[in-house]
Amino acid sequence: QASKKLVNSVEGCADEALAGLVACNPNLQLLQGHRVALRSDLDSLKGRVALLSGGGSGHEPAHAGFIGKGMLTGVIAGAVFASPAVGSILAAIRAVAQAGVAGTLLIVKNYTGDRLNFGIAREQARAEGITVEMVIIGDDSAFTVLKKAGRRGLCGTVLIHKVAGAMAEAGMGLEEITKRVNTVAQAMGTVGVSLSSCSVPGSKPTFELAADEVELGLGIHGEAGVQRVKMAPVDQIVTLMLDHMTNASNASHVPVKTGSSVVLVVNNLGGLSFLELGIIADATVRTLEGRGVKVARALVGTFMSALEMAGVSLTLLLVDEPLLKLIDAETTAAAWPNVAKVSVTGRKRSREAPKEPQEAPGAAAAGGVASQRMVLVLERICTTLLGLEEHLNALDRAAGDGDCGTTHSRAARAIQGWLKESPPPASPAQVLSRLSVLLLEKMGGSSGALYGLFLTAAAQPLKAKTDLPAWSAAMDAALCLAPGTHWGAGQELQAWKKPGADLFQVLTKAVKSAEAAAEATKNMEAGAGRASYISSARLDQPDPGAVAAAAILRAILEVLQSQGA
Amino acid sequence: QASKKLVNSVEGCADEALAGLVACNPNLQLLQGHRVALRSDLDSLKGRVALLSGGGSGHEPAHAGFIGKGMLTGVIAGAVFASPAVGSILAAIRAVAQAGVAGTLLIVKNYTGDRLNFGIAREQARAEGITVEMVIIGDDSAFTVLKKAGRRGLCGTVLIHKVAGAMAEAGMGLEEITKRVNTVAQAMGTVGVSLSSCSVPGSKPTFELAADEVELGLGIHGEAGVQRVKMAPVDQIVTLMLDHMTNASNASHVPVKTGSSVVLVVNNLGGLSFLELGIIADATVRTLEGRGVKVARALVGTFMSALEMAGVSLTLLLVDEPLLKLIDAETTAAAWPNVAKVSVTGRKRSREAPKEPQEAPGAAAAGGVASQRMVLVLERICTTLLGLEEHLNALDRAAGDGDCGTTHSRAARAIQGWLKESPPPASPAQVLSRLSVLLLEKMGGSSGALYGLFLTAAAQPLKAKTDLPAWSAAMDAALCLAPGTHWGAGQELQAWKKPGADLFQVLTKAVKSAEAAAEATKNMEAGAGRASYISSARLDQPDPGAVAAAAILRAILEVLQSQGA
Repeated sequence: QASKKLVNSVEGCADEALAGLVACNPNLQLLQGHRVALRSDLDSLKGRVALLSGGGSGHEPAHAGFIGKGMLTGVIAGAVFASPAVGSILAAIRAVAQAGVAGTLLIVKNYTGDRLNFGIAREQARAEGITVEMVIIGDDSAFTVLKKAGRRGLCGTVLIHKVAGAMAEAGMGLEEITKRVNTVAQAMGTVGVSLSSCSVPGSKPTFELAADEVELGLGIHGEAGVQRVKMAPVDQIVTLMLDHMTNASNASHVPVKTGSSVVLVVNNLGGLSFLELGIIADATVRTLEGRGVKVARALVGTFMSALEMAGVSLTLLLVDEPLLKLIDAETTAAAWPNVAKVSVTGRKRSREAPKEPQEAPGAAAAGGVASQRMVLVLERICTTLLGLEEHLNALDRAAGDGDCGTTHSRAARAIQGWLKESPPPASPAQVLSRLSVLLLEKMGGSSGALYGLFLTAAAQPLKAKTDLPAWSAAMDAALCLAPGTHWGAGQELQAWKKPGADLFQVLTKAVKSAEAAAEATKNMEAGAGRASYISSARLDQPDPGAVAAAAILRAILEVLQSQGA
Repeated sequence: QASKKLVNSVEGCADEALAGLVACNPNLQLLQGHRVALRSDLDSLKGRVALLSGGGSGHEPAHAGFIGKGMLTGVIAGAVFASPAVGSILAAIRAVAQAGVAGTLLIVKNYTGDRLNFGIAREQARAEGITVEMVIIGDDSAFTVLKKAGRRGLCGTVLIHKVAGAMAEAGMGLEEITKRVNTVAQAMGTVGVSLSSCSVPGSKPTFELAADEVELGLGIHGEAGVQRVKMAPVDQIVTLMLDHMTNASNASHVPVKTGSSVVLVVNNLGGLSFLELGIIADATVRTLEGRGVKVARALVGTFMSALEMAGVSLTLLLVDEPLLKLIDAETTAAAWPNVAKVSVTGRKRSREAPKEPQEAPGAAAAGGVASQRMVLVLERICTTLLGLEEHLNALDRAAGDGDCGTTHSRAARAIQGWLKESPPPASPAQVLSRLSVLLLEKMGGSSGALYGLFLTAAAQPLKAKTDLPAWSAAMDAALCLAPGTHWGAGQELQAWKKPGADLFQVLTKAVKSAEAAAEATKNMEAGAGRASYISSARLDQPDPGAVAAAAILRAILEVLQSQGA
């Protein structure tokens, strides 16, 4: 059975993919009757050298993604992994010639079909009196013994598009560009690894890999590589790749050594996650720098893909300052990334984190006398929660992970430990702030985050004052973080704002309201967290979080009553 | 068994992926001790609003790829698919505050964990006297009935990074940016489809799909979607997606209708081939325009991924001219693509192909009398090749597809048909050119391309003259296209260049040399095409192509001898 693909038809793939890129990039136009995309501002190229490239489809964003000012003038696309038609290549050459360009350079990856078809088109164009040159790019460093067919053209071709494009944009002549490109093309190497093959639309994957194997040195058409190795950590795989491609006994190696300066391309072959791509980029830069190689620029992304192959290729191009200027030159090509014009190696990659601010001197003053009562309240809350552990877990099993009691007990023990370790700070605001940090770190989960959030917010109004209106405001600050939450207890505590409000009367009403609210959650739908994705039909038990909150409030009331206000 | 991944360790994934992006982008720095990346030029932001975003890892290039001038100031990354630590969010807020920014906006995707952790950090920062605001982004259009948890934050968040970044860069204040962002965030919708789930490092895929199923309306954490549909052509799938996300009865729809102007994002969820992405982009633009929607800008690429999920999401943002200006504003963010500042809809997407040039009037003159003899030569070549069909196929079965004879017979029949249809052109140059086109079209394969190439090249020297030195030059032109090819016959024909050279003597030697060369290919390695990948040990038969070439040369000699020069 053929692999699953999001296509309309196997035959239409290459045409529609190119049409899509052109539709979304108004700087491009199709050439009618051909699978050719060209810059829409061809007339602006009068007197400049035109650059045409292309090849089989399935390597997107190559090649059409690299059309633009400062890169390619146009591309000719074949069917998936097949060489483009001579007639279309010729039509593209004619179209740019008619725009009055000062000659055309064909940039062709080294594959038999592409060499032949681009070569024929070049001859036919020359027969019509058009000035055309051709460069064949072979950057593959996989084969240690050179085949007669030569090195395959891989991701390094994109760097040639960039370098040639910068020269053409600068107004250099065809001969000079051709010569320079041929030199640059000799100074690079590419090698890939993959976790999978890929499949041409309508077909099965072209090879299979075991779950513990990776393929080294593959091409970009789903062809198998030169070596199959066992899965290993990325650092080892990257070392293997770099060793292979820079080893002087490898006939296709790139001579990168200590002191070399390189442009690095970390290229997603298609289906690798960008998380893995970043990890590979990290390992590659580290390994190269460990060998004394200077990474001048590093490009990370998808440049030359092999459909959905879950792999990566590394390209190294030896550079000097003039060549770097060409890499850095501006381009409007859609798939060329924003690359900082700064060396990767030698740059400070981290900065010191700011220190935690010291408590403001005045903040400790307010409410310092309350700390002993506060300790008693906290201790009672802890014993209450520890006593409820099994009950809360049982309630939670109905709708959640069944760990609500465990989580609250963890919090209680953390608070007990904290109280034993050091005397609690003087002001209620500081106590709530420290509690917030403690629960965030030690309680964990959504509950820890929720308590942390509420306590942080509640601490603010208590910085200046600690009277009843301030405590009411603290509750307001906490609850307003969860818009849409109507907690009866919060409403009741508003009464503390009235002049002459009684602490116990109001708090008693609030406790009762909280307990009623907890009971009422039997029929409520959870608004957040895991429980929010469970159908309300299953919630026939009160919400354990609401039960815990009511119990905490009652613990506070009982301690305060036993102590007297 | 956990899925195969290119990582060093499950625990180190998020740290190393971020370190890799920072290493390769010298505009960024890590904050020591935290999974935080910040612009390295923080000091340049004095007096401007800072923008921080982030969330779980696994969505690369989001969020760190969108740090840069004109986009984010920094990001805080959690473990894979997990919310970042409050302490790290707070550290990032402090770091930008210390750089003297005029307030900080937290841009947070709507997930419970992110809301809580960013919310707590905001409160703690406020407690330290830092000015911080927060916007929650929910662009998900999957759920037709709104959950209390609200719409999830998906790829549309990246557009918010862009819009807010442009405003901050322009020097707008925190309040104004926050207000505008909240409005913009209401005017967008995102929906995804996928062919696969994804797997967190160290784990299995989070769900399974049958070979004929696609999942509609999924999130970006491998969670299943709202509907499972049968595989269908892309046009139908895109229609389903657009219908779903714009349907007014869907509570989370985006009200895009005839006359609307939108920014479209075609986002690779990770493992989809860019070929498919282009096809989807094509279908989406066509479908939207078919509904009278104006596509103002279209972004195609990987923006907000879900690890290696083989899927795509479509985001639609309703825009007016002022909002478009913010989308178009410059940015140095590495993962923001080069987007042309021109409307996608209303642009001419193709240009007419250039006409085939007319034969130059003078070209027909030279060598017109030779045509009758030329016809006889061609006819003999055809009968010779037809007679060799079985023999050539047998030779080819040893090393290739076994179709070399069939291919040559197809060429012979094409030539016979052409000769019957119309009188051959007058000059040898024209005959070779027409033959070239004929074989390219009708012979096919690498052989057709090779003959086409050689004939095109050979035609050039025969344009001006058709004497023996010109024919020798024609052979030179053909053979120089295949550097490294030493064909004895070609060498022999050099003798035609000498004054008084004898046609028959030289040609006879060339035929014998060609026959000897064909025999010698028994021990040669193939240099190109499929046969080049077969070990030389298997080549114990002469190369059928060389045998055919020698037979053609002998046919020419025999006809010329029978006719007399």
